[in-house]
Amino acid sequence: MNKVILLKKRPAGKPTLADFEFTSAAIPVPPSGHVLLKALYVSVDPYLRGRMNDAKSYVPSFQVGQPIQSGIIAQVADSKHATFKKGDFVSGNLQWMQYQVSDGKGLIKVDDKVSPLSSYLGVLGMTGLTAYLGLTEIGIPKPGETLVVSGAAGAVGSVVGQIGKIYGCTVVGITGSDEKAELLKSKFKFDHAINYKTKHDLKSAVRSACPNGVDIYFDNVGGEISDAVLANINKHARLPVCGAISMYNETKMPMGPRLQPLLLTKSATMTGFIVSDFSTKFPEAFNQLALWLKEGKLDYVETIVEGFENIPQAFIDLFDGKNQGKMIVKI
Amino acid sequence: MNKVILLKKRPAGKPTLADFEFTSAAIPVPPSGHVLLKALYVSVDPYLRGRMNDAKSYVPSFQVGQPIQSGIIAQVADSKHATFKKGDFVSGNLQWMQYQVSDGKGLIKVDDKVSPLSSYLGVLGMTGLTAYLGLTEIGIPKPGETLVVSGAAGAVGSVVGQIGKIYGCTVVGITGSDEKAELLKSKFKFDHAINYKTKHDLKSAVRSACPNGVDIYFDNVGGEISDAVLANINKHARLPVCGAISMYNETKMPMGPRLQPLLLTKSATMTGFIVSDFSTKFPEAFNQLALWLKEGKLDYVETIVEGFENIPQAFIDLFDGKNQGKMIVKI
Repeated sequence: MNKVILLKKRPAGKPTLADFEFTSAAIPVPPSGHVLLKALYVSVDPYLRGRMNDAKSYVPSFQVGQPIQSGIIAQVADSKHATFKKGDFVSGNLQWMQYQVSDGKGLIKVDDKVSPLSSYLGVLGMTGLTAYLGLTEIGIPKPGETLVVSGAAGAVGSVVGQIGKIYGCTVVGITGSDEKAELLKSKFKFDHAINYKTKHDLKSAVRSACPNGVDIYFDNVGGEISDAVLANINKHARLPVCGAISMYNETKMPMGPRLQPLLLTKSATMTGFIVSDFSTKFPEAFNQLALWLKEGKLDYVETIVEGFENIPQAFIDLFDGKNQGKMIVKI
Repeated sequence: MNKVILLKKRPAGKPTLADFEFTSAAIPVPPSGHVLLKALYVSVDPYLRGRMNDAKSYVPSFQVGQPIQSGIIAQVADSKHATFKKGDFVSGNLQWMQYQVSDGKGLIKVDDKVSPLSSYLGVLGMTGLTAYLGLTEIGIPKPGETLVVSGAAGAVGSVVGQIGKIYGCTVVGITGSDEKAELLKSKFKFDHAINYKTKHDLKSAVRSACPNGVDIYFDNVGGEISDAVLANINKHARLPVCGAISMYNETKMPMGPRLQPLLLTKSATMTGFIVSDFSTKFPEAFNQLALWLKEGKLDYVETIVEGFENIPQAFIDLFDGKNQGKMIVKI
């Protein structure tokens, strides 16, 4: 039997289990030039929420009644393809199905002897590339500068902070629990960590943690947390916008302070991006991340949930910040 | 007698004549190494409004009871300075006084045989440099792209649009009267001009004028006009923020749609700037503007008000859009 997860209906606000449908299909037989893939690790990511809306976004919408897709590590269970042989491990943007057929396009072989398979969804995968390229291409960190990261204990944020330290920045993380704040300082060597849930005046808390002001704000969350950081930026600040998890479930247009006067006063630049904007730089970025990982300069945590049937709940839990680092479902 | 204009009190909201004080002083005698300057043309600019607040901005605040400063073209009336001789014309950031002494720092000689003196406050002055450098360094125009300019009939906007045409863009201007809209098309060769005061649905009006979407939005105004343009931006749009005249007189924090989700979806970049951010490029920018002017590729209009005592009113009139092109007071 082959289990499949479909988008049952478009979520209104925060997603619920009722938005997903479990079904089953026969295990397909790969035609010539194709492989049969068995899913091993499934990545769940906040940006998938945008694809569940029927709105133009940077990636096409999921269709109701069709399987959802995300980053998946799979093993080749059967091969009629010249490049891939049975037993190979691959990474790809695949469907939420236990078994599926692929023509090999977009599949990348990964090596479990170099790094654990799940890491190819995180620090050596799209989230690591997002952190590295967003920070270096837009943030442009310089020694002695102050870098603030929101969603700091998440998959991207925890890597951003560590890269900031490698570049010689003072790094401040904003996160949603004391436990995560402690993790940022102990495991990821952040200089300061702020639990925004315990600060009634986050703007002042950021100012205290950043006595020289904020030169780079790597924004994963948006909303009032970002307002508090932006109130502390320096002249010529760089503001990569990687995510806006606080707004993904909004059903009305989110309102806030107009940014233009601030950007004008500070000669600051705010840039939204998606990792594929920098796809020509993926090979060099991957090599740099793999080297840092090998040298022990990068560390990572994963929140691994077991069981194909738990994929939707793991996805929903992202919006309550239940993950530390990369959220992954092990099949 | 030497007339002087002081900041009497900090304006609350829109400036009024009561915020300014006229006084007089003796005509000073220049000490050794100094010149006596007689003001000929005084530039009034929206950004001066920010300097009238007691708030940190990109330039220091004016002090109550002290003269206001802006760009001024003056003639050397007496010289004890090696570089400047009596009769020379100079441009500088000077005080609102008929006569003043200068040690020569920051003064630039200007030549009335090359271009009319007043043009050194506009198309060949700070506003021309602002237009050229903001558009080329941040907007990065490419042939075939669509450029939208707000405040399009103003000193900066009218130059931005013409440079956009030189770079091969389709240029759309937004302005506040049918007369100005006509000027943009007839004199400045804009492809389209929109009078925002007669459009109840500005977002749709921008969409109609920009069927291929907006690649560059050169923003002089902020507020709801900018909301309407931003709703039409393309992937990888560049958004130089040069001014926010619609917000300069606000007494509360202006609120609007949060921009991060839009910038994220479009991989767009919004950058505030002040012309001095690009000061190393002033010589090449000036030469380019002077060449285009000589070749007839650039045109300009000025609104010239006569009389020293009319400086404050000319400044106030900027916020009602009473100027076409550069607003200048001739002494």
